[in-house]
Amino acid sequence: MTKKTTKRHAHRIAADWGTSNLRVFALDAGGAVLAEARSDRGMGTLEPAQYEGALLSLISGWLDPSRVTPVFVCGMAGARQGWIEAAYRKVPCAPVGGPFTKPKVESPLIEVFIVPGLSQDDPADVMRGEETQIAGVLASRPGFEGVLCLPGTHSKWVVVHGGRVERFMTMMTGELYALLSTRSVLRHGLSDDEGLDEDAYALAVRKTTAAPVEGMAGLFRLRAEGLLAGLSPVAARSRLSGLLIGQEMAATRGLWQDEKVLVIGSGALAPLYARALTLLGGDAESISGADMALGGLAEAASLQEREKEHA
Amino acid sequence: MTKKTTKRHAHRIAADWGTSNLRVFALDAGGAVLAEARSDRGMGTLEPAQYEGALLSLISGWLDPSRVTPVFVCGMAGARQGWIEAAYRKVPCAPVGGPFTKPKVESPLIEVFIVPGLSQDDPADVMRGEETQIAGVLASRPGFEGVLCLPGTHSKWVVVHGGRVERFMTMMTGELYALLSTRSVLRHGLSDDEGLDEDAYALAVRKTTAAPVEGMAGLFRLRAEGLLAGLSPVAARSRLSGLLIGQEMAATRGLWQDEKVLVIGSGALAPLYARALTLLGGDAESISGADMALGGLAEAASLQEREKEHA
Repeated sequence: MTKKTTKRHAHRIAADWGTSNLRVFALDAGGAVLAEARSDRGMGTLEPAQYEGALLSLISGWLDPSRVTPVFVCGMAGARQGWIEAAYRKVPCAPVGGPFTKPKVESPLIEVFIVPGLSQDDPADVMRGEETQIAGVLASRPGFEGVLCLPGTHSKWVVVHGGRVERFMTMMTGELYALLSTRSVLRHGLSDDEGLDEDAYALAVRKTTAAPVEGMAGLFRLRAEGLLAGLSPVAARSRLSGLLIGQEMAATRGLWQDEKVLVIGSGALAPLYARALTLLGGDAESISGADMALGGLAEAASLQEREKEHA
Repeated sequence: MTKKTTKRHAHRIAADWGTSNLRVFALDAGGAVLAEARSDRGMGTLEPAQYEGALLSLISGWLDPSRVTPVFVCGMAGARQGWIEAAYRKVPCAPVGGPFTKPKVESPLIEVFIVPGLSQDDPADVMRGEETQIAGVLASRPGFEGVLCLPGTHSKWVVVHGGRVERFMTMMTGELYALLSTRSVLRHGLSDDEGLDEDAYALAVRKTTAAPVEGMAGLFRLRAEGLLAGLSPVAARSRLSGLLIGQEMAATRGLWQDEKVLVIGSGALAPLYARALTLLGGDAESISGADMALGGLAEAASLQEREKEHA
């Protein structure tokens, strides 16, 4: 648990509650960040009755004892296995909107609003958390038309038109990569660090996007070339990334081809996606994803305040 | 450890030493099985110095104290992480052949011969253990020409011509299936048993073979349809099999199309492969894989005996 404290009370609080982490922000009336804190008490570690305590342990010092402070939450806290299930909103729709789901809380000092995720009927798809980042992106890029790519454990490709999410697609590439590189026979031949062999990555992306079956056929070859030809662990890791991301590029081609793509994210993954798109002739721009959830939660807060005014 | 004992001494002993199991057979001079035993002391659990003990604990009662009994071993005991590394033989070649690798043993009553695996330079590939099963298949089907399919954690597709392995290809489909169904987010929506929804399996095989990118794109849909549309856990598991085996069929099409294919194996996996091939218009016949390693080890023994006679 890390914490940056402030002497001013929060006007409202934003919480990005993922599977493995909880991040909270104290905001003033204008939306500026007064303080932030985080812990590892993500959805994966919590029973429903433990959510309020996990939240209060980070934010209690920010609360004004003379009023109720609204807390806006996005992410897996709203999942079926989370604090309380927040029903999905169906696309096409604006990325963030009500009704917000309000879990019962014991503290008289907070009121919690969970932002609903998005669903799509055909093909079936869901997101929870990314809708808030998307709202943050659109707040920072008013009028954006095109495709958002959000790399991650489950990457999301999102078609945006007229300020709304038209449709989207989820790929499990990140989770597959994690499983293959840590739990499969391939783990013996991969480097531990994230160094990239650019050529090995680029070649695998190109070959796999052109012939997607090469993605699967190429997996065991990493092991065999390690045994027979001394394939370096860095080249092996880079090629594995290329085999998997290449398959993703092939599967999503109908979404990104001839479109403006914003790749959103921080860390090592987003540059790999941007590089793959560029290699394939796509029009990709990378933007940091760090504050996007915060921007989307601000959007949720202002929606909620407007609803209250009109109530 | 299970054991079936015999009062007669073994003329020779065959051992199939995999990653997770060790199976041994006492054979008479004609190759008939006098007794068999197994334990869970596979390569994954053993240090090099422990192999001889693991072997003797199963076979010591079969040994004639008045002579040296030869023990023929196939499988992972010959891997780099095994008892002693047995160099690969390069295809094209007969599936089983010398030189056999002889680990040093302390017991004066046994002499151990490890059957080498096979390697292919381009595309790089390796097998260890399956070469012995292939020899067993060819011993039971003299003159067979066509393709062998050996489903498993790492399935092998093997082109056989003139009694030799011409080339082969390994797919990690079985390992991917195991990882996705037990360790990924998909595990929440899959049935625990192996019941098959034939239609869900067949549809996924057809769609994925026709458009391999659907294999990857279809993974997260299993989760989303479970959440949104109540996809049954049996249908989800069956479709997952179809998405992965369909990709394998697409990747190996150049090997099986217009060829006679023997699908070798026991258990639930081999019928799924045979069914996929039939659905796609392939010419597939299923044969049990149970005694194939034994047949191949007998082949190795007779090679060794002939070599000795000529020495």
